[in-house]
Amino acid sequence: MTKTPMQLSRNEILDLFDLSAGADAIRNAYIAQSQDTVESPDVTYLGFPSARGDCHVKSGFIHGTEGFAVKVATGFYDNPAHGLPSSNGLVLLLSSETGQSLAILQDDGWLTDIRTGLGGAVATMALAQPNFSKVLVVGGGTQARHQAQCLHFLAKPQNIEFTFWARNFDQAKQLSSEIALTGLDTRPTDDLKEACSQSDVIITTTPSTSHLIHADWIRPGTHITAIGADSPGKQELDVDLIKRADLHVCDALSQSLDHGEFQSAHRAGFLSEKNTTELGHILGRTHPGRINDADITIADLTGLAVQDAAAALTVYRAALAAQDTKASS
Amino acid sequence: MTKTPMQLSRNEILDLFDLSAGADAIRNAYIAQSQDTVESPDVTYLGFPSARGDCHVKSGFIHGTEGFAVKVATGFYDNPAHGLPSSNGLVLLLSSETGQSLAILQDDGWLTDIRTGLGGAVATMALAQPNFSKVLVVGGGTQARHQAQCLHFLAKPQNIEFTFWARNFDQAKQLSSEIALTGLDTRPTDDLKEACSQSDVIITTTPSTSHLIHADWIRPGTHITAIGADSPGKQELDVDLIKRADLHVCDALSQSLDHGEFQSAHRAGFLSEKNTTELGHILGRTHPGRINDADITIADLTGLAVQDAAAALTVYRAALAAQDTKASS
Repeated sequence: MTKTPMQLSRNEILDLFDLSAGADAIRNAYIAQSQDTVESPDVTYLGFPSARGDCHVKSGFIHGTEGFAVKVATGFYDNPAHGLPSSNGLVLLLSSETGQSLAILQDDGWLTDIRTGLGGAVATMALAQPNFSKVLVVGGGTQARHQAQCLHFLAKPQNIEFTFWARNFDQAKQLSSEIALTGLDTRPTDDLKEACSQSDVIITTTPSTSHLIHADWIRPGTHITAIGADSPGKQELDVDLIKRADLHVCDALSQSLDHGEFQSAHRAGFLSEKNTTELGHILGRTHPGRINDADITIADLTGLAVQDAAAALTVYRAALAAQDTKASS
Repeated sequence: MTKTPMQLSRNEILDLFDLSAGADAIRNAYIAQSQDTVESPDVTYLGFPSARGDCHVKSGFIHGTEGFAVKVATGFYDNPAHGLPSSNGLVLLLSSETGQSLAILQDDGWLTDIRTGLGGAVATMALAQPNFSKVLVVGGGTQARHQAQCLHFLAKPQNIEFTFWARNFDQAKQLSSEIALTGLDTRPTDDLKEACSQSDVIITTTPSTSHLIHADWIRPGTHITAIGADSPGKQELDVDLIKRADLHVCDALSQSLDHGEFQSAHRAGFLSEKNTTELGHILGRTHPGRINDADITIADLTGLAVQDAAAALTVYRAALAAQDTKASS
């Protein structure tokens, strides 16, 4: 008999998702990626130029886990004019033992947002100086919020002072106020240079195609997690800053050097597979990571299909546990 | 607001699927494929060797239609030992105008079976002599049944005498009796050579890796639809038979010459893009197809992602029409 897969709405997924379990799963995904104990085929792309739309299909499997994920994500950029969100999508989780569908997660892209937030926070925790407190978040979108909230969660009970900068100061003020309501210590800034020079950690989340952050704005010891650059031409950091950094970390060498934040430095010949380290090696303790307090470290995160699998498994396991609790009560 | 996609079970899909509308959609898919008015990215593959399993993800879109399909199909070959079917899967249909999910079709592979059946029948109808009556179906599996039933449907009211051959004669007898119950004129045979020499049409549906049908068994005027070969190493027809044929037709040149029935003839230098025709050109009347009654014609069908889209759209449109009927009654 074929069992009907579990079907979960976005709201059910939000209720079920446990940040701590999610962070553990994301950490394991980074390690598995670097140990090459994953299946992570090329991303499928379909274009719909007449509707200004596209679709990406990403599939990922972490060896040894009970399920693999196929994520279908669409972006149709005329949707907002018709009152619809531009991003849509869902994640299928299938059994790695029988191939049967385990769950259909109609997350509308939320799992991608949260796994990116947790992925950034895991990188920041692994690479920043242990007692970091001043964190600058660059960008005024959804990912700015997720990065701050996930880092706040993972850093607890350490107190963090979050500063928000966005191209539009009103956006920074609004984001700062909104996030303050969820219990974080936040402030907006309109001076990116000054904020950079006073931060222990900088998290960049913009779709910028020209660098926002200059090499001489950064003080020794700063860690930077760069989230925004994930396709050819995107760049948030000055190549001189990348050159100046002491440690270069990424989620996947093949992606980062090709179309991530490190693409320009790679093409300019400063960075290669030899002097760039995958985060999974640091999390798995086969690379020491940050060595000196004064090191400038940069993590370039482009996003992994196995993080989608990790996030989907986190929800699925929580849903099964909730069913068990219900059944036994 | 994001609308919840339609969710259809295998049984609902079987009830909704209209063979006539399906055949029209499949015909259009062949034509669009040959006119290159489709999106048909490379197939994604994931392997699960420890469970003897694999997963293929195929995506397809026919320009001008309202939806595109992402099909997830798994094969886990130890499943039957645990009382589970080896094949599983589902098809997602998404809007080509907004990217939103339109339908989740939990067909467990049935849509692939029926689109393959209809695809073969459309090819046979287009290429056989107009008054064909004797049809030999080679192979004892699901696709043998679908080919016969779809051809019976499309050929109506023309009467067809179906003969079934399988490696195991008992299987041929059982299949023949089963299909007779659905109103077809059927008989089994254990003499493949004789049956070949008396047929107007031969449809091959086996996973054979060495040729079953010899060049000198075939009489002039015969049409052959070869369904089985869809991966490197598979072959049902003698290369000399392929060499002897007057017209070579396939669904997609890139697939057929690489890993379809025509792969060996292509590697041996008999067939190339120059002397092989895509079925869509014949259906779209930019190629004459069969010219003489005595021509031997061969159609090599490997399966198209846009056929999955066509089949999914057929079900989706029928479901919408059923909703409308219900709403207005």
